[in-house]
Amino acid sequence: MPLSANNPDRTSWLHVDKNSDFPIQNIPFGVFLTRDDIITIGTRIGDTAIDLGALHQLGYFDGIPLTDDIFLQDSLNDFIADGRKTWRAVRDRIAEIFDSNNTTLKNNKSHKEIVLFRLDEIEMQLPVEVGDYTDFYSSIEHATNVGTMFRDPDNALLPNWLHIPVGYHGRSSSVIPSGIPVHRPQGQTLPDGATEPVFGPSKLVDFELEMAFITTAANDLGEPIPVDEAEEYIFGLVLLNDWSARDIQKWEYVPLGPFLAKNFATSISPWIVTLDALEPYRVEGPKPIKPQLDYLKSTSKKKSFDIHLEVSIQPEGAKENLVSKSNFKYMYWNISQQLAHHTINGCPVNSGDLMGSGTISGPTPDSYGSMLELTWKGEKPIKLKDGTERKFINDNDTVIMRGFCEKDGTRIGFGEVSTKLLPVFKKK
Amino acid sequence: MPLSANNPDRTSWLHVDKNSDFPIQNIPFGVFLTRDDIITIGTRIGDTAIDLGALHQLGYFDGIPLTDDIFLQDSLNDFIADGRKTWRAVRDRIAEIFDSNNTTLKNNKSHKEIVLFRLDEIEMQLPVEVGDYTDFYSSIEHATNVGTMFRDPDNALLPNWLHIPVGYHGRSSSVIPSGIPVHRPQGQTLPDGATEPVFGPSKLVDFELEMAFITTAANDLGEPIPVDEAEEYIFGLVLLNDWSARDIQKWEYVPLGPFLAKNFATSISPWIVTLDALEPYRVEGPKPIKPQLDYLKSTSKKKSFDIHLEVSIQPEGAKENLVSKSNFKYMYWNISQQLAHHTINGCPVNSGDLMGSGTISGPTPDSYGSMLELTWKGEKPIKLKDGTERKFINDNDTVIMRGFCEKDGTRIGFGEVSTKLLPVFKKK
Repeated sequence: MPLSANNPDRTSWLHVDKNSDFPIQNIPFGVFLTRDDIITIGTRIGDTAIDLGALHQLGYFDGIPLTDDIFLQDSLNDFIADGRKTWRAVRDRIAEIFDSNNTTLKNNKSHKEIVLFRLDEIEMQLPVEVGDYTDFYSSIEHATNVGTMFRDPDNALLPNWLHIPVGYHGRSSSVIPSGIPVHRPQGQTLPDGATEPVFGPSKLVDFELEMAFITTAANDLGEPIPVDEAEEYIFGLVLLNDWSARDIQKWEYVPLGPFLAKNFATSISPWIVTLDALEPYRVEGPKPIKPQLDYLKSTSKKKSFDIHLEVSIQPEGAKENLVSKSNFKYMYWNISQQLAHHTINGCPVNSGDLMGSGTISGPTPDSYGSMLELTWKGEKPIKLKDGTERKFINDNDTVIMRGFCEKDGTRIGFGEVSTKLLPVFKKK
Repeated sequence: MPLSANNPDRTSWLHVDKNSDFPIQNIPFGVFLTRDDIITIGTRIGDTAIDLGALHQLGYFDGIPLTDDIFLQDSLNDFIADGRKTWRAVRDRIAEIFDSNNTTLKNNKSHKEIVLFRLDEIEMQLPVEVGDYTDFYSSIEHATNVGTMFRDPDNALLPNWLHIPVGYHGRSSSVIPSGIPVHRPQGQTLPDGATEPVFGPSKLVDFELEMAFITTAANDLGEPIPVDEAEEYIFGLVLLNDWSARDIQKWEYVPLGPFLAKNFATSISPWIVTLDALEPYRVEGPKPIKPQLDYLKSTSKKKSFDIHLEVSIQPEGAKENLVSKSNFKYMYWNISQQLAHHTINGCPVNSGDLMGSGTISGPTPDSYGSMLELTWKGEKPIKLKDGTERKFINDNDTVIMRGFCEKDGTRIGFGEVSTKLLPVFKKK
């Protein structure tokens, strides 16, 4: 049954630019501070932010079982915990309220003054309080590139890679929304040819182009989530920049994996685009190269999504430079497989957990998802429009990632995650 | 200046057994459900649990700046966030209230009925809502044993080990208090000689004897915590059992570290013993084998603690079997170094974060902190009193860890973390 909020023929009485990421078919969810310094949960149509807390107080969600303060919160965790039936009812209602044919709110000036905001009147926050953050490693192109560079080109993939959606735990305390700058990290590195490590600023700060899904509470301790049910527990997706310090990573990562090389910052886009909104953009993922164990096999084939992804670098005071174009559909392991694998041992998943895809590299060199791969360890620097070169990210560069789906004239986008890299932190 | 609550000459008007872990010099903090199903923060003297929420409402903490509901919460996070000055004031006040010479509460029968509980009237909960859980790998004996078994006996320690307090991120959603049983996990393993993995229950479920410290909010994104200030941000310690599935771990852990082999459960003891209570038991740790970078060097030497540790296995319906005796002082990297390292890149630390030591193995085979080491990969099974043998942990075995300090007739203990291993989860 098609989802009512996804009706491609619907238009809104709010203005939406032709190339907007946020037509009335999107209806993402986020958290923002209003001009009155009130924190609320909201959505966005075109360039108008909508205060769902205020809409709810005014009775626009009457008939949907919601607690009074469900949107008057500093995170979406409780709303997400209400489950898919509630998300759908709310998204459908929002589509109705802002439908061109519905004049109730449209003609109520005082309500509109309370509910609607220009983007420059609000400040986006983290959409969820992240309980646990997991990062997968699910792009075969990325894993192959890294394996080729640092291990053996003839055996680039490790033996487990085609059997396991390899993942590891990240740090939730350093997950930040778009717009919050990050300091270049310091740490230990082992210079080439040295036997003792040195201390100092990382010289190889990199981005990783990722997406991430956000879950609802799904299972008790001990209980696996079957792969065919996994999507019921996935609220939506965001863009994610998994900031990485390659020199710190190289020295620290054996045998327990990356730690300080990653946990100084992870940036996400502030609007969660629901899995429901992405429904029209389902595609099949890559065919398995080796047989997969039963708990990773879906009955349905279209478990991947056709999401165009882009990365730009913007030096201080200069123009943006597009450095990569990739696509979420390249992921070898899909989000259903990732969640089924994560819980097969009984690991509990909660509302607001964040699960990153891993770097999303495509098959061609211009679709690689990190500077490590784009410049091949710095051997092939990228020329920028201002005449400078980049092997990795310089101080005061801003890294911007964008993503969108497009089909039959409807575009559903994620906006952007934009993060400036500041110099090393100095105590004031 | 000695801490007033640590006065070794003080006795309590509450009964305390001679060998109790909880004399009036301990005053740990925990969270429990009372007989009236109310959740509260409490402490313990001898075998009496004390409701701090009720004590506060009755005015016993007057003069200490505390919010009214600081103890009427389901976690210690907010109290811990109040900082060390507050922790000390509260602990000192508790010592005064229960001092043998103080008759105020002792002689107030109606207050005592509200405030005091027998242990069988309460149910201990997780003491904190764990934001992030980090696990270190700081025992040189454990790292050497593992390196000897799985890599190269002549180069058992990896090159970074003597320079870095190696650590990685764990899963906070599966941290559980003592008493909650755990199911044997299922997952992928690669049988010896096979080229394709199989799916099934782990055959090598193991414990890891650890301790963990719990932090207060310490720093902003970007800001390191200096090693000499680290202890100011450490509230206290608990015992920790880092449940591990060795066969799953072996197949999954390259290149990003352990994941499903660990995140099915991590058990902790429910009473947090404050760093202040451990003050009399400070000792020097092992001498550094290699020079350490400046950010890891403390001005003061006694940064370790002399804490006796024990592990027992109790088969269903049978007696306990002591299988290991170790000590926290064996840790090569101390908690100050761990916290300084964790934040040197600017990673933020919050109130309620949990940081495990890694398996605490001692120098002799009877002091190893895991079955993997105690039975040397299963080559030397342990004989139990009931005539059975153990290479790893069997279904329905209970693993019990205990810890205590003892000096000059005063004993400060942690109680225990006791966890039963149930068979594989079956859907009802």
